[in-house]
Amino acid sequence: MTDCSENCGGRYSHGLAATLRVISGKWKPQILYFLLDGPKRYGELKRTIRGVSDKVLIQQLKDLEAYHVLARTDYKEVPPRVDYALTPFGRSLADAIVPLCTWGTQNMAEMVSIFAQRDSLP
Amino acid sequence: MTDCSENCGGRYSHGLAATLRVISGKWKPQILYFLLDGPKRYGELKRTIRGVSDKVLIQQLKDLEAYHVLARTDYKEVPPRVDYALTPFGRSLADAIVPLCTWGTQNMAEMVSIFAQRDSLP
Repeated sequence: MTDCSENCGGRYSHGLAATLRVISGKWKPQILYFLLDGPKRYGELKRTIRGVSDKVLIQQLKDLEAYHVLARTDYKEVPPRVDYALTPFGRSLADAIVPLCTWGTQNMAEMVSIFAQRDSLP
Repeated sequence: MTDCSENCGGRYSHGLAATLRVISGKWKPQILYFLLDGPKRYGELKRTIRGVSDKVLIQQLKDLEAYHVLARTDYKEVPPRVDYALTPFGRSLADAIVPLCTWGTQNMAEMVSIFAQRDSLP
């Protein structure tokens, strides 16, 4: 895991660097979080994660599948039916993402104010 | 907070999108995590977060300061002494990052194997 060793400092942070490697990508944490509810079809993910292009969403789903955190099931039906679900490994990762969501929700008022200040900078 | 509303789906994910906006940037989660130990001088951060350039590290520190999660103190000494510390707001965010580190540490063996498979792909 050369990348991880190079990118982080003390050995205690190797865990964080490894996790960040798996979830790096603008939409991956949100994909994992949404799948905590249960399996989702591609169209549902696309509608839920607004603003993502098909190209990018498909690539991020492929990456997460390659990391064994997400499983893609093709039901071989006509019309095609495919869904995405967390693996048990992916569920434990999604559980570790929940505190980030909780923190954001608890501090939303403060962040709205901070974002507004930043966005008004020249 | 237009960015957040546009980038995420259901209202329950607004918290996650807002948090991701604050910590987006390759080194920000690691900076916050390292500061959980206590204030650090710039040189210490630079040594700990290996592989980052001065330009990028300084920008990420400025961003975190603008988001009020990090405070920079200039002691007005000669030679200059400056340190960076978490604000109480930043400490609560860093606490929410800890589970990502724990997950990575607990699943390191599995990830080493998965990363090796990926890196060996043509």
